[in-house]
Amino acid sequence: MNTLNNIREYITLLDDANLKSYIRNLPLTTLLEFWDDLSSEEELKIFSLLNTEEKVDLIASLSPGQQEKLIRQISDEHVKVLLEQMEPDDLTDFIQSVSPEARNSVWNNLSEEAKKETRFLLRYDEDDAAGLMTPNYLAIRSNITVASAISFVRQHASEVETVYNIYIIDQLKRLIGVISLRELLVSPDTVLIEDVMEKNVISVLENTDQEEAAKILETYDFLALPVTDSYHRLLGIITFDDVMDVIREEQTEDIYKMGAMDGSTDRYLESSIWNLIKKRIPWLTILLIAATFTTNVLSAFEGLMASSIVLTLFIPTIIGTGGNSGTQSSTLMIRGLATRQIHYHDFWRIIGKEFLIASIIGLSMGVLIILRSVLLPPFVTIEEAAAVGIALCFVIIVATLVGATAPLMIHRLGFDPTVMAGPLMATIIDLSGLTIYFLSAKLILGL
Amino acid sequence: MNTLNNIREYITLLDDANLKSYIRNLPLTTLLEFWDDLSSEEELKIFSLLNTEEKVDLIASLSPGQQEKLIRQISDEHVKVLLEQMEPDDLTDFIQSVSPEARNSVWNNLSEEAKKETRFLLRYDEDDAAGLMTPNYLAIRSNITVASAISFVRQHASEVETVYNIYIIDQLKRLIGVISLRELLVSPDTVLIEDVMEKNVISVLENTDQEEAAKILETYDFLALPVTDSYHRLLGIITFDDVMDVIREEQTEDIYKMGAMDGSTDRYLESSIWNLIKKRIPWLTILLIAATFTTNVLSAFEGLMASSIVLTLFIPTIIGTGGNSGTQSSTLMIRGLATRQIHYHDFWRIIGKEFLIASIIGLSMGVLIILRSVLLPPFVTIEEAAAVGIALCFVIIVATLVGATAPLMIHRLGFDPTVMAGPLMATIIDLSGLTIYFLSAKLILGL
Repeated sequence: MNTLNNIREYITLLDDANLKSYIRNLPLTTLLEFWDDLSSEEELKIFSLLNTEEKVDLIASLSPGQQEKLIRQISDEHVKVLLEQMEPDDLTDFIQSVSPEARNSVWNNLSEEAKKETRFLLRYDEDDAAGLMTPNYLAIRSNITVASAISFVRQHASEVETVYNIYIIDQLKRLIGVISLRELLVSPDTVLIEDVMEKNVISVLENTDQEEAAKILETYDFLALPVTDSYHRLLGIITFDDVMDVIREEQTEDIYKMGAMDGSTDRYLESSIWNLIKKRIPWLTILLIAATFTTNVLSAFEGLMASSIVLTLFIPTIIGTGGNSGTQSSTLMIRGLATRQIHYHDFWRIIGKEFLIASIIGLSMGVLIILRSVLLPPFVTIEEAAAVGIALCFVIIVATLVGATAPLMIHRLGFDPTVMAGPLMATIIDLSGLTIYFLSAKLILGL
Repeated sequence: MNTLNNIREYITLLDDANLKSYIRNLPLTTLLEFWDDLSSEEELKIFSLLNTEEKVDLIASLSPGQQEKLIRQISDEHVKVLLEQMEPDDLTDFIQSVSPEARNSVWNNLSEEAKKETRFLLRYDEDDAAGLMTPNYLAIRSNITVASAISFVRQHASEVETVYNIYIIDQLKRLIGVISLRELLVSPDTVLIEDVMEKNVISVLENTDQEEAAKILETYDFLALPVTDSYHRLLGIITFDDVMDVIREEQTEDIYKMGAMDGSTDRYLESSIWNLIKKRIPWLTILLIAATFTTNVLSAFEGLMASSIVLTLFIPTIIGTGGNSGTQSSTLMIRGLATRQIHYHDFWRIIGKEFLIASIIGLSMGVLIILRSVLLPPFVTIEEAAAVGIALCFVIIVATLVGATAPLMIHRLGFDPTVMAGPLMATIIDLSGLTIYFLSAKLILGL
């Protein structure tokens, strides 16, 4: 909070030159953190003191809502200058994210060339590899020398998003090679490109899923990944910075799904009440309906509950602990599947491992709950405590195995275990846990 | 599975030349996916057909256990050649991850220079920015021309991890500027570096947390981030590929913590039974003990349960739905805090929004459960259904508010909400949910 107060104070106290040097020394992360708390006047003041490049960086980092608010405040002339500096892929994202009204004014301010590039990118699905790409890359022919390639790079460096990979295309625009700028610089001047280029180019198709493209770029530590059509013609490149955004978004989606929600990643404070309800109510409804079947299981054991009230008292503890054990093993499986460290063909090895783990944990927890219920209120008899403890051990074993099996099966069937396996599995565990609990307690207590 | 069978078949059928071209056309991702399933002979066969660069890439991508297994199989002479090709930061990670016995043989195979560099990096904490850095970067003085800088880069490009940022240091090795290779290439040959370099260098200190360093590199879309000591002397640089690994690991940690486990990120299949138990049992114990307090709440309402068995039947449904609502709002808060889109100073705005959302969701779920319990078995009276429905509505509102408040408070107090807020919050919700449920049902049914 101190920095926010400092910014405010400096805006009032300092003259433009000093404020400028203060603002331009602030890390972009700090500015972003406090952006929401600034008044429109403060935003505009700070913005006006940045140079064009910093302005473009700031706009590209703001959320859609913040971008729009800012754009509405600055003059058309100024917007034009800024838009011209943005990379085509960032510009396309920006156009897709602003409201229809603002979009119009943005569009009218674009140069003819930018309109053409953006129109080209707007054709692609946001979630495809092509939706991430920029059409501004360096491409050369294979029959030129290293020296002329270097001079080509020096001439065109300012027009492209990255100069660090240079692509080699044939007369049909098909991608036939790639050379890194580093490789180019260490090669002798007179050598031909075709003799130094890497012919085995790793690329993705325009309709490859963006998460798949991100994974490839990440595995190879590439700075950029070329995107081609089905004729292997080069359409554009995806750069590492766009991939980092995809990784973050994917992460948020997964976390939302594990929290029993729709995975869309709008910002909380900018989302409408209605959108936040839509995000939550479908899963909550499904889970509520599924959970109501526990009433049927319980009503089957009404007689048993009437004869031992202690069994009823432990219902929440039993299903809660079963749920936690199941969540632990399903979390390990879901994450292992997502990072490709676990595969279906390890099924029996995993089940064996989980069974052993669950037995040890089940025994420890069983002993723990027996001690707890005998020593602390509500004091229960040793027989009842034993029944609860032994039943808990069984519940933990079954819950752990369900938690491990469900994600593997769901993944095997081609569905996303993150959505299906989390909370829905909890319901299966509740139902089976209650049944096991009452059946084993019945047996032990001889009721 | 088909690819695995293909690989196997080709290993048996093809001669070395054909197998080589098949293997070298396989994406690294595919090889990694099936690596665990290959026999030692198959691993060795495939490995022997790769060129040195591909071998280094493969080793760097394998898990510690896989690396070690492979290294043990190849001759010392061969290990030596490979180790010489590895970047110092990858090499340091590698040395830290292999077992003590293997480490010795690796260490003995290092060149004197590599030993020196590695020893330098081994001094730093793995979780600090310095633990990620490589000491091999390009550094020049500010009084040379662009042309001589380019020729310096061309001469030394093969010795460093990245050539795309060139750092400018003074005679005391203090970092005074940076220039990207791109900027360098577009500058006229005769200009001095000090006139084109960026003097405002963004860097981190050696003991900056690695996640913080990752966030900075990500915000600015940097390819590399310099690391300095407290005298601003340049120690090394962190490159974007290491940061992507940090992002993935951080993601796994968060997901484990949300699943009520310790956040350490060992691979499941390679972890020992004992390590997997240690990962799970502490939280499970805490949660079990916390959950047992529900027995005390329930025993306080024993009389009520005896007079209306229907109320007992709905216990799992009520606490389950309360838990799900709380998880939804806490997930949104935890994620918002982690991505810095939500701040404590929005507290009352968030609470207001959540109260409105929870009321609407609570009403809908209340109506739903009333309809369900009247229309389907176990058929309950309309009065009992109404009591359950109204109580559920209250439980959802309270659970949602607890779910939203807990992470904000915990974060405000300086703790990690991912660990604290998830499952522990579930216990608070169970306890308050049961109390609210019985109290409101009691009131409505007039018992």
